[in-house]
Amino acid sequence: MNPEDAKPTAPCSSPVYVHNPHLDVMKDDILYHFGLGTGTHNLPALFGDVKFVCVGGSPWRMKSFTEYIAAELGMENPESEYPNICAGTDRYAMYKVGPVLSVSHGMGIPSIAIMLHELIKLLHHAHCTDVTIVRIGTSGGIGLEPGTVVVTKQSMDATFLPKFEQVILGKTVVRNTDLDQSLAKELLQCSKELNQFETVIGNTMCTLDFYEGQARLDGAFCSYTEKDKQDYLNKANEAGVCNIEMESSVFAAMCKLSGLRAAVVCVTLLDRLKGDQMNNSHEVLQSYQRRPQILVGYYIKKQLKARAVCR
Amino acid sequence: MNPEDAKPTAPCSSPVYVHNPHLDVMKDDILYHFGLGTGTHNLPALFGDVKFVCVGGSPWRMKSFTEYIAAELGMENPESEYPNICAGTDRYAMYKVGPVLSVSHGMGIPSIAIMLHELIKLLHHAHCTDVTIVRIGTSGGIGLEPGTVVVTKQSMDATFLPKFEQVILGKTVVRNTDLDQSLAKELLQCSKELNQFETVIGNTMCTLDFYEGQARLDGAFCSYTEKDKQDYLNKANEAGVCNIEMESSVFAAMCKLSGLRAAVVCVTLLDRLKGDQMNNSHEVLQSYQRRPQILVGYYIKKQLKARAVCR
Repeated sequence: MNPEDAKPTAPCSSPVYVHNPHLDVMKDDILYHFGLGTGTHNLPALFGDVKFVCVGGSPWRMKSFTEYIAAELGMENPESEYPNICAGTDRYAMYKVGPVLSVSHGMGIPSIAIMLHELIKLLHHAHCTDVTIVRIGTSGGIGLEPGTVVVTKQSMDATFLPKFEQVILGKTVVRNTDLDQSLAKELLQCSKELNQFETVIGNTMCTLDFYEGQARLDGAFCSYTEKDKQDYLNKANEAGVCNIEMESSVFAAMCKLSGLRAAVVCVTLLDRLKGDQMNNSHEVLQSYQRRPQILVGYYIKKQLKARAVCR
Repeated sequence: MNPEDAKPTAPCSSPVYVHNPHLDVMKDDILYHFGLGTGTHNLPALFGDVKFVCVGGSPWRMKSFTEYIAAELGMENPESEYPNICAGTDRYAMYKVGPVLSVSHGMGIPSIAIMLHELIKLLHHAHCTDVTIVRIGTSGGIGLEPGTVVVTKQSMDATFLPKFEQVILGKTVVRNTDLDQSLAKELLQCSKELNQFETVIGNTMCTLDFYEGQARLDGAFCSYTEKDKQDYLNKANEAGVCNIEMESSVFAAMCKLSGLRAAVVCVTLLDRLKGDQMNNSHEVLQSYQRRPQILVGYYIKKQLKARAVCR
């Protein structure tokens, strides 16, 4: 089958948009950092049924999410491991089980942005429709008990403004970082039904650096005092910031541009008002990291059940 | 041995500096993204002899560099693989053979900055002295034959200025991106002696994005024309930019602050004036990626020989 022949089946369904006229005149499109391409892979056959995409920093965590969701959906294959679809490269890892795609994105805005450019093109080339995407990650909390899950309302920059600045041809372009508010509420409702851990909706600050950029006192360089740190984090708190991470702003901006229904669900590994280092045991940190997986797994299962009833 | 007892042996040698008074009062220092720490690992015993650090984006490439340098230095261990020292985490990979440490840093400024904060603290805690650090990476060239190796003179931002902007406590701080000019010249001389591939010294533009941020026409979004792209890249060329990558500015800034002798050695995988996609075969791209390894391997071997003669 020519990939271009596979059109969306439901005309009222919502496609994944690219905004790039140059793509129409390209013979093939190489998704370099995935090791995939339109000339070498039948993307509609491989990915056309994707309805949920979960992304997170660590390759290991995204594999573990795939195993978890497969068990939850009763789609385990006891005879085989889930192969890494991007095995031809070590930049990102990608796994698929039924309608759920799981992709790692590394750390920081540039790393997730490369992944999202290629993911959006992949979903577009595969003619996917009605796709929901969730970043499941880790973060530092502000004034929250460690282990609390934060569903992001707005992603803010390091000056507490809800915007993402992108430099294009040397000029700064400002993009909106709104996320899907109804999806955030649905996720909060899921957490209430699960009743396993605390979940809140709040603003998330997205920074370009983990140490000085997040007012940590334990980096290789630090030119400010403990009081400067507390003043800055308190100001963030006053702006409604519940947690700090490093990918949400460009994630929100790019998903909005491409018409993807998007949410950011991050667990807090520590309370930054009380410290900077991850002192909790490996086991405790691991159990916290499973919470966004459990919440999003529950949401996907609930959605698929509801859709099965509607048919 | 208490790690703090191991002081540098030669008083005139150059240490690795941290600039953070808070570190002095911390009981332990957890290097979270390495899965290492002063309370759990004897860092002077493990790393005290490190004289050369090579960093690059891909974990696989850094492992392959370790195998290559071990063979070059006659330090292969045929009975065992080189273990990943950061095996407790999948954020970075780290390998060591003799005085050479090899660490992956992922893609983009935030990802390499986290690694460098923890690496600089590691070298400091281990009391390393006279350390040379080289980033061996890949890049897009401007007006150069693909496969050309560029040793960076100055790292420039997307407006062609030699500076790195870092946001600390919500305020922008500007840092210098100078690299060690004598090291750059020594590397160029090594390439002449090797006589295997073209090497040039030139400016490197460092961007926060691979697609729109580097004027590519093949991202999910593109709002400019082919002419806009060519005009921007030509302006970069006029500012002395030979290649574009995504880590050199913060690498230069942080190495300068910590007193590390630093160079950036990147191969160009394509000529951006002629295209945006990596159309070359996997084998050709792989052979290009080995060139910075070969050059830096030759440099390290030459240095170690010279030092052995001096003793």
